[in-house]
Amino acid sequence: MSEVTRFIPVSGGFLMVLRQGDDVFARLGALMREEAIGSAAFSGFGFVKSATFGFFDFEAGDYRPKTMENLELTNLTGTLAWKVGEPAIHAHATAGDASFRTFGGHVLSLEVGRGSLEIVITVFPGRLERAVDPDIGANVLQLMNIL
Amino acid sequence: MSEVTRFIPVSGGFLMVLRQGDDVFARLGALMREEAIGSAAFSGFGFVKSATFGFFDFEAGDYRPKTMENLELTNLTGTLAWKVGEPAIHAHATAGDASFRTFGGHVLSLEVGRGSLEIVITVFPGRLERAVDPDIGANVLQLMNIL
Amino acid sequence: MSEVTRFIPVSGGFLMVLRQGDDVFARLGALMREEAIGSAAFSGFGFVKSATFGFFDFEAGDYRPKTMENLELTNLTGTLAWKVGEPAIHAHATAGDASFRTFGGHVLSLEVGRGSLEIVITVFPGRLERAVDPDIGANVLQLMNIL
Repeated sequence: MSEVTRFIPVSGGFLMVLRQGDDVFARLGALMREEAIGSAAFSGFGFVKSATFGFFDFEAGDYRPKTMENLELTNLTGTLAWKVGEPAIHAHATAGDASFRTFGGHVLSLEVGRGSLEIVITVFPGRLERAVDPDIGANVLQLMNIL
Repeated sequence: MSEVTRFIPVSGGFLMVLRQGDDVFARLGALMREEAIGSAAFSGFGFVKSATFGFFDFEAGDYRPKTMENLELTNLTGTLAWKVGEPAIHAHATAGDASFRTFGGHVLSLEVGRGSLEIVITVFPGRLERAVDPDIGANVLQLMNIL
Repeated sequence: MSEVTRFIPVSGGFLMVLRQGDDVFARLGALMREEAIGSAAFSGFGFVKSATFGFFDFEAGDYRPKTMENLELTNLTGTLAWKVGEPAIHAHATAGDASFRTFGGHVLSLEVGRGSLEIVITVFPGRLERAVDPDIGANVLQLMNIL
């Protein structure tokens, strides 16, 4: 039995509709490989079973994580690029709970909840890479002429 | 006397500037009909007199609503499709109050406040439908080849 | 020594990667002048050292400001236009602190923090102006046919 389609091509990119249980970053990475996306921006919204946010601690050199459950993702904003041959996905999100209080930050992982999560991907015309910037000790999207 | 224009065509879609008292969903639905939009994504921001958010209660099969007033809408993210011949608009939003605390979730209705609300609509090349997914008991955007 | 590139052209507009210490509005205004952008929409996310939000007080005719520091900007949504020969940038943002609480509203100024801030600019095909609407006493983007 074939899986329900998760994305279709639209003018300038792709429209994704992810479903309960889907790992958002894994799905975006698979799209990058299948469709040979060199770089892209994306924007999304939907319902998540769990969202793990991280706030970067420069002293520790890592993210302090927190996981929250059953949230309406009010906005997901990010970019797709590559790092050492692997998809490098950078995304931030805001999400509201059952009382409409919101939380947000840098996204470490997202799992779709009961419902769906819609994402529009706008593809850029070439490949971009992320690399650790020695001045700041964090990944930065490296700009180069791709047009 | 003719009404002030609410939208203009731009490359790839439309730019809307809504005004005090406008019902955002009614305006988006009217745009879909007037311009024969089969499906689209949109993104917006502005000032709202009232925003009604809803958190879906799967037991009750309906949204638990809450209305808030006089908020800066910091982001509106959504998609346009059709359901049984009617515009089916799905949108999430985040909004801040006078002390910059934010609230957000699934949007049930929005009325523009004193000021304006700007929305960019990116049109997709064909018609998409929403339908209740029997597995989850909620509307899901149905993907099909439209390119 | 030449400065690190802050933007590249992509299909339909520009991708910006701003760096620690950059003034976001000054960089967007410089882009508008250098690339002769008549009007555009933009969307971004990243880390900010400081964000000043303002809530408009119609009695006083000005914004009540508040500055917050060291925030993950979860979403920046705005439009670029002109007013009396100068760039007129309208932007709203949501941002999360180290505990993932979020704040947001109309943006008065933003300075990039340790890390980067990525912005995608979608250029429209002509020039648009902002002007104070006498009915509401605030700037409104004036629509006219630009296609």
